[in-house]
Amino acid sequence: MKDKCGVVGVRFDVEKNRDAAALYIYYALQALQHRGQESSGISVTNGCCVLSDKGMGLVTDYFNRERLQKLAGYAGIGHVRYSTTGGSKLENSQPFTVSYKNGTIAIAHNGNLVNYKELKHELESHGRVFTSDSDTEVIAQMLAMELIKNDIVEAVRETMKRLVGSYSLVILIDDKVIGVRDPLGFKPLCIGHVDCGYILASESVAIDTLNGELVRDVAPGEMVILGEKIESYKLVKCKNHAHCMFEYVYFARPDSIIDGKLVYKVRHNIGEILAAECPTDADIVSPVPDSGITSAIGYSNGSGIHYAEALIKNRYVNRTFIMPAQELRETAVRLKLNTVKSNIDGKRVILIDDSIVRGTTSRRIIDLIWRGGAKEIHARIGSPPIISPCYLGIDMASRDELIAAHKTVKGVEFLIGANSLYYISLEGLVKAIGIDKDDLCTGCLTGVYPIEIPGEKCEDKQMKLNQFAPE
Amino acid sequence: MKDKCGVVGVRFDVEKNRDAAALYIYYALQALQHRGQESSGISVTNGCCVLSDKGMGLVTDYFNRERLQKLAGYAGIGHVRYSTTGGSKLENSQPFTVSYKNGTIAIAHNGNLVNYKELKHELESHGRVFTSDSDTEVIAQMLAMELIKNDIVEAVRETMKRLVGSYSLVILIDDKVIGVRDPLGFKPLCIGHVDCGYILASESVAIDTLNGELVRDVAPGEMVILGEKIESYKLVKCKNHAHCMFEYVYFARPDSIIDGKLVYKVRHNIGEILAAECPTDADIVSPVPDSGITSAIGYSNGSGIHYAEALIKNRYVNRTFIMPAQELRETAVRLKLNTVKSNIDGKRVILIDDSIVRGTTSRRIIDLIWRGGAKEIHARIGSPPIISPCYLGIDMASRDELIAAHKTVKGVEFLIGANSLYYISLEGLVKAIGIDKDDLCTGCLTGVYPIEIPGEKCEDKQMKLNQFAPE
Amino acid sequence: MKDKCGVVGVRFDVEKNRDAAALYIYYALQALQHRGQESSGISVTNGCCVLSDKGMGLVTDYFNRERLQKLAGYAGIGHVRYSTTGGSKLENSQPFTVSYKNGTIAIAHNGNLVNYKELKHELESHGRVFTSDSDTEVIAQMLAMELIKNDIVEAVRETMKRLVGSYSLVILIDDKVIGVRDPLGFKPLCIGHVDCGYILASESVAIDTLNGELVRDVAPGEMVILGEKIESYKLVKCKNHAHCMFEYVYFARPDSIIDGKLVYKVRHNIGEILAAECPTDADIVSPVPDSGITSAIGYSNGSGIHYAEALIKNRYVNRTFIMPAQELRETAVRLKLNTVKSNIDGKRVILIDDSIVRGTTSRRIIDLIWRGGAKEIHARIGSPPIISPCYLGIDMASRDELIAAHKTVKGVEFLIGANSLYYISLEGLVKAIGIDKDDLCTGCLTGVYPIEIPGEKCEDKQMKLNQFAPE
Amino acid sequence: MKDKCGVVGVRFDVEKNRDAAALYIYYALQALQHRGQESSGISVTNGCCVLSDKGMGLVTDYFNRERLQKLAGYAGIGHVRYSTTGGSKLENSQPFTVSYKNGTIAIAHNGNLVNYKELKHELESHGRVFTSDSDTEVIAQMLAMELIKNDIVEAVRETMKRLVGSYSLVILIDDKVIGVRDPLGFKPLCIGHVDCGYILASESVAIDTLNGELVRDVAPGEMVILGEKIESYKLVKCKNHAHCMFEYVYFARPDSIIDGKLVYKVRHNIGEILAAECPTDADIVSPVPDSGITSAIGYSNGSGIHYAEALIKNRYVNRTFIMPAQELRETAVRLKLNTVKSNIDGKRVILIDDSIVRGTTSRRIIDLIWRGGAKEIHARIGSPPIISPCYLGIDMASRDELIAAHKTVKGVEFLIGANSLYYISLEGLVKAIGIDKDDLCTGCLTGVYPIEIPGEKCEDKQMKLNQFAPE
Repeated sequence: MKDKCGVVGVRFDVEKNRDAAALYIYYALQALQHRGQESSGISVTNGCCVLSDKGMGLVTDYFNRERLQKLAGYAGIGHVRYSTTGGSKLENSQPFTVSYKNGTIAIAHNGNLVNYKELKHELESHGRVFTSDSDTEVIAQMLAMELIKNDIVEAVRETMKRLVGSYSLVILIDDKVIGVRDPLGFKPLCIGHVDCGYILASESVAIDTLNGELVRDVAPGEMVILGEKIESYKLVKCKNHAHCMFEYVYFARPDSIIDGKLVYKVRHNIGEILAAECPTDADIVSPVPDSGITSAIGYSNGSGIHYAEALIKNRYVNRTFIMPAQELRETAVRLKLNTVKSNIDGKRVILIDDSIVRGTTSRRIIDLIWRGGAKEIHARIGSPPIISPCYLGIDMASRDELIAAHKTVKGVEFLIGANSLYYISLEGLVKAIGIDKDDLCTGCLTGVYPIEIPGEKCEDKQMKLNQFAPE
Repeated sequence: MKDKCGVVGVRFDVEKNRDAAALYIYYALQALQHRGQESSGISVTNGCCVLSDKGMGLVTDYFNRERLQKLAGYAGIGHVRYSTTGGSKLENSQPFTVSYKNGTIAIAHNGNLVNYKELKHELESHGRVFTSDSDTEVIAQMLAMELIKNDIVEAVRETMKRLVGSYSLVILIDDKVIGVRDPLGFKPLCIGHVDCGYILASESVAIDTLNGELVRDVAPGEMVILGEKIESYKLVKCKNHAHCMFEYVYFARPDSIIDGKLVYKVRHNIGEILAAECPTDADIVSPVPDSGITSAIGYSNGSGIHYAEALIKNRYVNRTFIMPAQELRETAVRLKLNTVKSNIDGKRVILIDDSIVRGTTSRRIIDLIWRGGAKEIHARIGSPPIISPCYLGIDMASRDELIAAHKTVKGVEFLIGANSLYYISLEGLVKAIGIDKDDLCTGCLTGVYPIEIPGEKCEDKQMKLNQFAPE
Repeated sequence: MKDKCGVVGVRFDVEKNRDAAALYIYYALQALQHRGQESSGISVTNGCCVLSDKGMGLVTDYFNRERLQKLAGYAGIGHVRYSTTGGSKLENSQPFTVSYKNGTIAIAHNGNLVNYKELKHELESHGRVFTSDSDTEVIAQMLAMELIKNDIVEAVRETMKRLVGSYSLVILIDDKVIGVRDPLGFKPLCIGHVDCGYILASESVAIDTLNGELVRDVAPGEMVILGEKIESYKLVKCKNHAHCMFEYVYFARPDSIIDGKLVYKVRHNIGEILAAECPTDADIVSPVPDSGITSAIGYSNGSGIHYAEALIKNRYVNRTFIMPAQELRETAVRLKLNTVKSNIDGKRVILIDDSIVRGTTSRRIIDLIWRGGAKEIHARIGSPPIISPCYLGIDMASRDELIAAHKTVKGVEFLIGANSLYYISLEGLVKAIGIDKDDLCTGCLTGVYPIEIPGEKCEDKQMKLNQFAPE
Repeated sequence: MKDKCGVVGVRFDVEKNRDAAALYIYYALQALQHRGQESSGISVTNGCCVLSDKGMGLVTDYFNRERLQKLAGYAGIGHVRYSTTGGSKLENSQPFTVSYKNGTIAIAHNGNLVNYKELKHELESHGRVFTSDSDTEVIAQMLAMELIKNDIVEAVRETMKRLVGSYSLVILIDDKVIGVRDPLGFKPLCIGHVDCGYILASESVAIDTLNGELVRDVAPGEMVILGEKIESYKLVKCKNHAHCMFEYVYFARPDSIIDGKLVYKVRHNIGEILAAECPTDADIVSPVPDSGITSAIGYSNGSGIHYAEALIKNRYVNRTFIMPAQELRETAVRLKLNTVKSNIDGKRVILIDDSIVRGTTSRRIIDLIWRGGAKEIHARIGSPPIISPCYLGIDMASRDELIAAHKTVKGVEFLIGANSLYYISLEGLVKAIGIDKDDLCTGCLTGVYPIEIPGEKCEDKQMKLNQFAPE
């Protein structure tokens, strides 16, 4: 399960810091590297022209002193990307930069447009062409069209009227850095204050890394413009929001604060609630590292059962290739995870994981623990069963692949080979997050989505009250 | 003086050769490598989708077995590029590929649009955006606009109505490979026949390399479509043409046949005519390698003076960096050219070069020969003085830099340090080429251009009779 | 504090697995990647010749399918390296391969020869030359000299007589894979059994990764020969051993079993003992990740104080460059570690770290936690004060840089800015490890070393009873 | 047919030029790039330590500004390499650098030791080890052994006593640059004078490139030491020499002066003598480019037959891969050479080539010319038939592969498909070179070698009078 992207924007007071925007973006992108490892890019302006550089790989693999020194400017944006289907190509990497009548626009996008194809077809029917297959190019073209007719605020407002889906955007127009969040607030975006300037970032850890201070989240439907000063425009009002609950469960770093909630605290709550919802007698509670760690600690604190590491993760294995030799069939798992036998042997183990998607990884991990000599294995999952795909930016799996779309909890329990399996209840998860259920997107857990998606059910609470607000 | 590009298109009978288009393009591009060494690219179709790959460097540096094997298809195009101003960036490399309403278009372009900025501004004023700063993207956008309204023939005809400048295009639309040459025929483009298919190429050497046969040149104003069969459409008729005479003098390989004329023969003629126009007593005649070689042989044959190599070229020095140390001031020249002293010492030398642009290289070379002990040096130049810039695709120099724009022949003679300097007459050059003067572009030699260029004189012979022909 | 290397050897039954030695080594080296990230290398034999490949970077960065397929063989060795002083050069990477009279020897070495310079000078005084500056080349030359006079067993015995220092060696001679461990057993080396063959590895996790079974440790002073069968030779006997206690505290993976002791258990014990030796009232106990994690869990279990993560580590930052801008002075730390404020704010924090070397990192981390709003910070360290350098293979620091060599515990406490500082007692550490104190090397903690080092004190218990044993 | 290497040494007056040795070597190696394209390397000293860098590829591919700036020194050596059998490995690249008792020696070697294996076995039998499979390491070890017993002059003299074969060496010992040429002078080596210092180089073009002056050749058996001043030692005297005649025919650049003879002049003579020895009526004389060019000019001047280019060489094709498709069977040749049809069609062509080794290339080229419509083709070869392998440093072919070892001239004529074939006579070649036949190595042309080679005949004139001269 992979998220799509991380975005950053930085705007300095040109009198105080004329050159360092790219350097700040470089550090901020490193703090967001967990949101995408495929490609990274930076675009900055020095007031005269836009300088861009992007390439495949981690931020620190691609960018070096020489590349950064060529990117002197006082305002800019950055992006790290994990590719969904559509392919791992340099053409799809971001920021996406286009020239138009009045200059250059650079856009960095986290999210997924549900009506991407319709918008693209509409533009194509007017003879427009596309050089990539990303939805970001659609946004860029629509925005450019509006910008030759309107000022920035109206242009963004008009563009937002057409976009359906999730989008947290950071845009460089002239020397302004603009942040936009979709009306339902699927993906996070926050504002921070640093020496001599302001920053926009997908997660607050990027602000921490720059020794800055988190000011607040960008509100759903809001546009902020970082220029000489910060301007804010509430462009679209919705009665409810639809924050992605998987940011708390899995994607975000535990040290991030998203929509006012510290992720660490949410995950700790999940563990405590799991312990309370389904009390289980055991010798140890252990996480599947890394995403299960905090919940396992919470479970231990809630239940009084000893926290112990049954599994150790190899920190250096990102990409390896596996030969299909029979005798090495387990090595793929063993390269990433190994067991600590003394914590397992003869023990009743509660294993905490964030979610189950296809079930294959869970089965392999549980098999490893059985081989370590466990007496019992009880799987406890930090999210309810995933029964429906995500259309809003998570490259999860198709419905066919989602095990919980086809099997009961008992069926999954049998398949993964655990003595017992328990998923946190939806109510429990909502309580752990601390945000009203009506303000969360739970499409993948309920099959009911906050926006209309062809072939899926739509929860009308959120969308029907949408309205484009006068400024 | 650098030309911009080489283009190739290949279309096989899908029944007979389903996969090898990229391989043929790969070899053909190597034969055209002298036309551009900065980047190379290939786009092919397998009938379903378009596969593209392009990168910086020579064809054999970038493409390897693995990259080629991923490009399986039976029709495709290729491009080698030398960048003019605008920068050596991967974004500007070709083929330029866009998706539009009906599919994908890939374009490879040799030439230069004179009204590029006007067309771009017009498109931008309709809200269109650009992702590169090449004129090829302008052509791609215009063509896509037409293709959603018209069939290919009409779409190309309508597009050509708007384009002013030089363009030899090879275009991949669906599984058709289309060749287009501008109405004045500035840049070369020819058709060849190979096993199981047809080929388009900037020069006939690409066809020779594939053991194919040159069928004919694409005519100025003609479009050919390579599909199941070859179709030809004369879309624009002009009374006269404007073939670039520098293709014969400098750019093309001597073994190429361009617009019916073998380049070797033209260069040999140039040498003979130089000998006839300005008889000179000397001990040897020697070329500045490589472009002066054939003319020097012609001069020797015409004059009876011994042909000898006064200068030897280092075949391995393409890119080196020069430190500004005083004692190494001559090394930049010496790395590329060295003298054969016994051919020079005490000799009267006739030195044949193709052209003089800035004069600095000529001065350094003549200085080298003086140091070799020459008794006399007589420079003979295979083109008339270049007095005006090229706007049609040659990255020559600005008018300020053109030495002949500011100095008399005597002035240039003094500056380069030769005992005498003689440029071939325009009539002599025309005679050497064997094409009517009214069918050649001599803008850089006369300051009178075959098309209207702001601030320059225009020869109306060629343009005023232009007309877009009914099919 | 960095260890030097990880070594692996694999020997298959040639009838059963003729080609896959390199693949097994590739996976095993990934499991040992934490022991060295600078360069990696593999040498294998197919029975006829030795094939080698080595390069800079992580195992998965350098080796790919193509490189591995060229290394077909049934016996081989591998190495991952962290460079000490002497430089990060490809020449110094391993396995170190030499040809000699009877064939080829490849050696992979973990450790440090104390008498390296003397041995090298002695060889040089006989006119021998060296192509690297590694001590491994000295071993290779000495071994080759012996091998032309003796069989393998005698050759190794004679070589070991001259070597002073730490060395766990894996050697490929003909198609035999030989493991040698120095008489005091400083560095780990163990034997495992896999399908169709045997394996030698620095840590047992490499065996786990291959789904093999740990057979036993190679004993100090022992040589094992993996051929058609396993042969064992106890070449040197010492009354006591000198296992490096930092393998348990810091270097090894927690899931490894070294000299019979599970590292996880040792670290958990350390936490419990710290809690018992210095009871402290606090709200949470938190590790400095990653090396402090297991001890912090042990501390929590021992004390009943809640385990919580005060610090989150960025998993993607290995190499970044830091600009010396004043306002980014903290970013170097923040890129690697960020605080979870809710776990800190207003809390009394017990912080568990494995060791303090220079003190600068500790000070910065503690400063971060203060900024997070901690009420009290109590540093608890899993090893006694490091007062003396390591000469046996750890690139720790010079005596000048070791803060505990110059300051009292109170002085260090003041410098790092904690409310209190407590180091585990030497007795406590020994108890945690569960190996007799006389069988551990505690040179860096006591200044008394198990072997003679010029200018340092030597504990004669271990060395004086050394003797080279008859086979 | 490929030569092995090019060598360079530079020594500046430290007071006048402390840092630029590597830069001069970099330029000089570019001038020698035709002697080896596989790897390149530079070693320099700053008076304190030796700095080395070497890598695969052309000089300008591997070395850049950054690499050169790290090589600051006032004395140094360089090497370009073409690998013979033994493999294209970085370990075998040069300069070969070893540390020994008194410091560091760096050696660059052009040539081939005939008794390499014997010397290596002898050293191995004393327990010495080798890290490469080049004969240069043997020389390095022997020299180091001598240097700990003797001064440089005696050490080199003693080493030379043992070496049999061809060797032009440039050696860096301390801050002295030493040039050594084997007693028979197989391979070239010359001395030049540049600003603030002296230079040694395989060919004089390297000196020209640095705007230096050729002082003289290093004499066979001579050692020169470039230090504060130049010292010369004639260490070995032979009555006769054995200069490789293929340096003149093929390897060297035509602008080089080797052993007092300008290569251009020799090649021109070869053409004139071919015309005289075998008068032939024809329409044109044409070279196989590049090595046949100068001889073809000489032939034209000697015979009065017009010089014309029947073949054009593609300057950009170094490495390409060829697919074994039937229809592309000729492309391998066509990529490198194409015909100028108007020069061939209906013409009687005299084709000048430097040599015939296997005959396959000649056959393909002649086939190309037939397809161009030639009426007659007469092959004229600038060297006598090659009937025996080279043991002295040319990677020619085995005897089995040498077509002239097995076929008569008529037989070769038939095989290559020419109307007539004529090889220059040995006497003609000797006359063209202008060096006494007794001072040339003609082993490959006669089967009688100037030194003893097991299984081959030896001409005792040269060797029997060898003696090691007192200084």
